[in-house]
Formats: sequence, C-alpha cells, structure tokens
Amino acid sequence: MRSCYACGRTATGSDAGQRCDCGEPLWFDTDPGDFEWPDRDGVWAFADLLPVERPPSGLAAVAGATPLVRTPGLDVDGARVHVKLEGTNPTGSFKDRGSAVGVAAAVARGVDTVGTVSHGNMAASMAAHAAGADLDCVVLVPADISASRLRRIAAYGPRIVRVDGDYGRLYYDALDLGPRAGVEFVNSDSPLRVAGQKTTTLELLRAFAAGEASGDGTGGDGTLAPPAAPDAVVMPVSSGGHASAAWKAVREATAAGLLDDPPRLYFAQASACAPVARAFERGEDAVTRLDADEVGETVAYSIANADPPSGTRALTATRATGGAVVAVDDDAIRDAQCDLAGAGLRVEPASATPLAALRTLRASGAVDAGEHVALVATGVGYGGDATTVDAETVTRAELAGALGVE
Amino acid sequence: MRSCYACGRTATGSDAGQRCDCGEPLWFDTDPGDFEWPDRDGVWAFADLLPVERPPSGLAAVAGATPLVRTPGLDVDGARVHVKLEGTNPTGSFKDRGSAVGVAAAVARGVDTVGTVSHGNMAASMAAHAAGADLDCVVLVPADISASRLRRIAAYGPRIVRVDGDYGRLYYDALDLGPRAGVEFVNSDSPLRVAGQKTTTLELLRAFAAGEASGDGTGGDGTLAPPAAPDAVVMPVSSGGHASAAWKAVREATAAGLLDDPPRLYFAQASACAPVARAFERGEDAVTRLDADEVGETVAYSIANADPPSGTRALTATRATGGAVVAVDDDAIRDAQCDLAGAGLRVEPASATPLAALRTLRASGAVDAGEHVALVATGVGYGGDATTVDAETVTRAELAGALGVE
Ligand SMILES: [Zn+2]
Ligand SMILES: [Zn+2]
Repeated sequence: MRSCYACGRTATGSDAGQRCDCGEPLWFDTDPGDFEWPDRDGVWAFADLLPVERPPSGLAAVAGATPLVRTPGLDVDGARVHVKLEGTNPTGSFKDRGSAVGVAAAVARGVDTVGTVSHGNMAASMAAHAAGADLDCVVLVPADISASRLRRIAAYGPRIVRVDGDYGRLYYDALDLGPRAGVEFVNSDSPLRVAGQKTTTLELLRAFAAGEASGDGTGGDGTLAPPAAPDAVVMPVSSGGHASAAWKAVREATAAGLLDDPPRLYFAQASACAPVARAFERGEDAVTRLDADEVGETVAYSIANADPPSGTRALTATRATGGAVVAVDDDAIRDAQCDLAGAGLRVEPASATPLAALRTLRASGAVDAGEHVALVATGVGYGGDATTVDAETVTRAELAGALGVE
Repeated sequence: MRSCYACGRTATGSDAGQRCDCGEPLWFDTDPGDFEWPDRDGVWAFADLLPVERPPSGLAAVAGATPLVRTPGLDVDGARVHVKLEGTNPTGSFKDRGSAVGVAAAVARGVDTVGTVSHGNMAASMAAHAAGADLDCVVLVPADISASRLRRIAAYGPRIVRVDGDYGRLYYDALDLGPRAGVEFVNSDSPLRVAGQKTTTLELLRAFAAGEASGDGTGGDGTLAPPAAPDAVVMPVSSGGHASAAWKAVREATAAGLLDDPPRLYFAQASACAPVARAFERGEDAVTRLDADEVGETVAYSIANADPPSGTRALTATRATGGAVVAVDDDAIRDAQCDLAGAGLRVEPASATPLAALRTLRASGAVDAGEHVALVATGVGYGGDATTVDAETVTRAELAGALGVE
C-alpha cells in the first residue's frame, strides 16, 4: 500500500501511481512494529521493510552495505564526523539502492521495460540494473547532454531518447506516459526508489546502534564509547527523494522502538540552485520552482534541481526532525571536496556539500561540539581533479638522496 | 613471523624484510587452527588471520566487503559465473585491502611514512589510505607518467617522485632504500599487502560456505541449492601478489577445516605481456623476466608486469591447486569487458581478463559445465568507453509516439 505523508490518503494496486491527488508524492507503507536490526548491511538486509524480495541473482541483488568511516581529521570544531561512503555502490552512487528495488519489483510484476529521467548517476544506475536483470530500459535525457555522460549511460546498452524541450517537465511526462507505454519509470522520488534509498539511513542507524561507529576515533586514551545514534545526519538534497527516504527510515526505526532519540535531518544545496533552502529560510510551507533567472551554474551539477518533485516533503522532513536546509557556495563546496580528499575520500562535488553545510551549522551553533554527525557522501569522484601537481623528477641514481638516505 | 613458501625459512622482527634469502617473497605465518568464518565480510572481519588489528578510525578501517554477484547471463556453456566486484572498494580496486593493512601496521609500529611503487590503482589506494591515517606517503612513479594518472594520485596529497630509469627495478630499489629512509614500502607483494589482499578470497569462500552464493540464479523452478564452495576462482595476475594471496587464503581455510574441496586457482594475463603464462605453458619452475622486445601494448595496462616479483609463487599456486595460467588477447578482453557491461558490471580491461580466460578454459574442457566459477573483477571502470552511441532525438510533443503510446 502506498500513502501520502501530507494528507494521509492511501492507494493500492499496481496502478496506484506515484503521486497523491493532493499533489504530493506517495511512498510505501510498512509495518515496522516487530522489526529488529539485522546483523549486517545491504539493501536486502532490510527486506522486511521493502515492498519486494531480493532477486536470486544479478546486480539488483547486491546494492548497499557501504562503509561508515569515522574521520577525526574532518571534525568541525569538536563536532565528530562520520562519512557514509555511498560511492562504493556498484555504479558509484546511492542511486543503486533505488534502482535495485525498482528493478526487482519490475521483475516480480512481470514488467519488461523500466525507465528513468536522468542524465547522470541515476541514468547509469538504472541502465546497469536493468541490464543485470535482462530488462529493457529507456532513459530520457536532455537533447544537449554531453558526449561523455552519454557514453557512460550507453555502456550498459539502454534505449536513450534525447528530448528537446523543457527537461524539468519530463518527470511529469514520464509519470503520465509510463503506464500507457508499459514502462515502469523509476524516477528520482518514485515510491520504489524511496524504498530502496531509505536503506542508506537504515544502514547508518544500524551501525550506530550496533556500536560499530567509533567514539572519538583517535585510538588514544581519550577514546569514547561508541555513540548509540548520530545526533545529526547531513545529506545533499536535489529532487528530495533521498532526503524523504532518510525521513522514512527515521520514522520506521522510531516506530520499531529502535531509535530513542532520532537524529536531526539536515539537507545541503548549492547556493546557485537552492529552492528547498529558499523555502526553509522564508518559512514557507511548500517548495516552489525556481525561475530560469534564479538558477546559476554550480560545480555540484548533480544536485541542481530547480523544481524538486519531493522538495516539499524534504522541507517537511527537516522541520519534523529539528533540522535545517543549508545552501553552500561553490568555494565552500570545493574546499570541502579538497579536505575530504585529504582524508582519503574522493567524492563528487555534490557529495562534499554536507561537510560544507556542517561547517555552516557548527558556526551558527545549530550543531554542538561533541555531537556525532553522519555525512552522506552520495557519489564517488574519480575524475582527475587535482589541478596542480607538485612532483619532483630524479634519476634512479639520485633516488637514495631524494629519500634522505646517506 | 614471516615465512617463505618455497624453502621454509622464517624471519621475525620488524626488519624481517620482504624477501627470503632464497630470492622468493615472504608472507606472514598465521595460526588458522581454530579459525571460524565470521558472519560478515570486510578486511577486518578476518582480523584473526591478519598481522595487525583494525584501526579505530579512518579509511583503513573499512576496506573490503565487496559484493559477489551471480550473473546467469555470463554463464559459459553451462559453467556458472559469480563475479566478485572489487571495484566497490573505497578507491575503486582490491588494492585497498592491502593498503588498509599496510597503513594500519605502520600506525601500530609508529612508522610515519609509507610508500609504494605504482602509477595506477595501487598508488591512488596507498596515497588515500595514508591520508586517511595522517601518515606521510611517498609514491615512486615513472618519469613519463600521464598527466591524468598523476592527477588521480595527487588528489590525496602524497609526495610524488618521478624516477627516470628502469621502472621495473624500482621495486627492488624501494626494498633496499625503504628501511634506511624510514619509509615502509607496501609494494605489490609485500607481506602486509598479501595479508590484506587474501581477504578477497576469504570473503568469497565465506560467502559460498554461508550459502549466500546463488545456485543457478534464475529464480525459476530450476534453482539449485547454493554451492558450498566455488569449483574454480579466476583472477588477473600481474605482480603475483594478489594471486599469491588467493593461495594463502585457500591454504588457511583448508588448515582451519573450513574447506573440504579447495577451488582450482586460475590466473589470467594479457597476451602482450604474459611472463607467468609463458612459464606455465613451458612447464618451467620459475617465471623469468620478459625482455623489452617480448612485451607489447595491451588495453589491460594495469596488469602488464614483465618482471613479476611474485610470479613464481603465483605459478606454484596454480600448479598446487590444479589450475592454470591463461593468456588472452585484447580482442577477447574487449569482448569480455563489453559483455560484463551488458550484465550491468563496468570494469577496467584488466578485470575482464578472468571472463575471457574462463571462455578459453571452458572451450578446452579445463572447466566443466555445471561448475561454479568465481571471477575476481579487480577494479572499477567508469571511463566513457562506449565508443558508439545510438540515441534518437525527439521533441516533448513527439515523446508519446516514441514510447509507443497512441
Ligand atoms: Zn496527499
Ligand atoms: Zn626461501
């Protein structure tokens, strides 16, 4: 059964749709009453809270189980940082969690074509998971997509349709045309995708509850007991699908009696495209679309969504948990990305926004010294983004001297 | 204690070195007598078989726990394929397992500088793990390294020394100079690296033993019981460090009484640079260095090692387990890489060599129909390697028609 967080309407059946009559997105109801933490991570470790079972084989069987890294070197004025490394998913981002559930559901229902609207991580993830289940896949991309992005998606062999026109409206076009075309569109905030993507947060809550998160992590005498839960979770927000999923996870863990003190959910946006942050700051009840002249360029292009279909749900989530939505500029994002690399973690710019946001939150006092904060690094960054390289050159005969050997 | 697989000599102490007086590489002795399978994966789940404990924080605490994917679509004439996706490690390759153990050991012993000789995955991995533990890191690279590779390594901030001269000899230069320079060089087959990298194979043996590997994986009525162990493991061989580690894992699991019927270990090389395969085919006792005129170009550049320091140990491993070493040409590698992408798995060319090798082995009858074969895909491939992209372009108004909606 699907339900609406906003008005409480419910819908059942395979044609129950993705959005409520009130306009807000639906998600799957669950019954977490007797749920207990599994003894390990992975999307399917949480199958009791998912609308479909684990498939017997293929890529869709393996998403999740990403590391949670305690990084004392990134602590922000006493606030203790843990990083959830979603880039270690099979195609390099958290999107695999939702694609896995979406594809498993399509297989279970006998649907033979899935699709999505994306020209980035979600497109690659969806195409990969469809290929892994031998399903057809349709990816709708903007007509002006770059060649390198197109090749990344094309590697998995989906049908790619470049659509000339307002790209922001394709989300709604897909919802409209999907059922009639026999295509299960697993878009950014579809109930299936939100179900899969809530496991990011379920995993990190489980790890804290199991005592697997480090205390102060220095390994010295000052090592603290592992915290039982994070005080705060910070993640990027774009469509609002992943952010909504985090809220769903917190609600379910609380309903199961597994979380006494739920974390505050903070969401980060790039200043150049921050409709959710704008609505939060203005105290508005709903997120409204940014006009073209209100949107700028940002290095965090993968979260630049001017018309987030689950923006209002994300806004509601952050208010319900005592969090906030924070906009950070590109300089702060680049600094955070560089500092993450300095701790051994390479992430895409969008994934550095949580650290940048935490710095803002700590400076304002919204996060206190001593608090444990989980940052969700949503996607990997392997691009050669060190722009200046300082390397010396020696001969083999000179090597000993270069290493300080007499 | 370190010991030599070939002559049995042992060495103790922190200056015990990396190679035996007989010339062969050392590895760490372990006492697997009472060892039992842990209930989960990850390098540190196998801490009882490692020479150092898990660090309390930082990147070095989290390597491993990579997925094992049953891929029926890649079955080779009835031989059942499982792929171990090492590209989901934090920096994108199995090298992270060895870097984690190497860095943890350096921290435990108070060494403040680590190093490696590499211009690829191992360099990036080592630099990242050093950064994560706040250690200094020295990376020795060839003077003619490409700018893109240099940037990838530089992102983590190590000291990079380009060395002009015979790159193949730097491995030995580093062993010689490291102790005198106060640098712990964790090279391709150092005992610490082999210890970490044996967990690739320990994880896949554990997964099979725990019944987590799918039977036929089709999900239909023909689903077989999960196999208790793979019949064969196929992985690329370059330096021979990872291959040796696989053998160590099989020996330890057997000694612990956890493996009744050890898998055959098969190793794959690119035809253009195949010193281990040559020695195997010729029935020789040792691997000898290829001359410059015996080495060609290959897409699988990351395994093109003409003078593998653990080549003879890898050769011994494959003979001891009833396996073989197989050379595959670039066309076969490209085909395998493309087919893996068609199953949703994007890997670098070197990681496609096991599938190409399995096709050769199945054709020759070395692997039988019905056997379960684990292919180790050692590193991720995200480069845009789809060279031709077939995408249509439509307007929004034409989209319904393009999707077949009347
Ligand atoms: Zn509603
Ligand atoms: Zn020896």
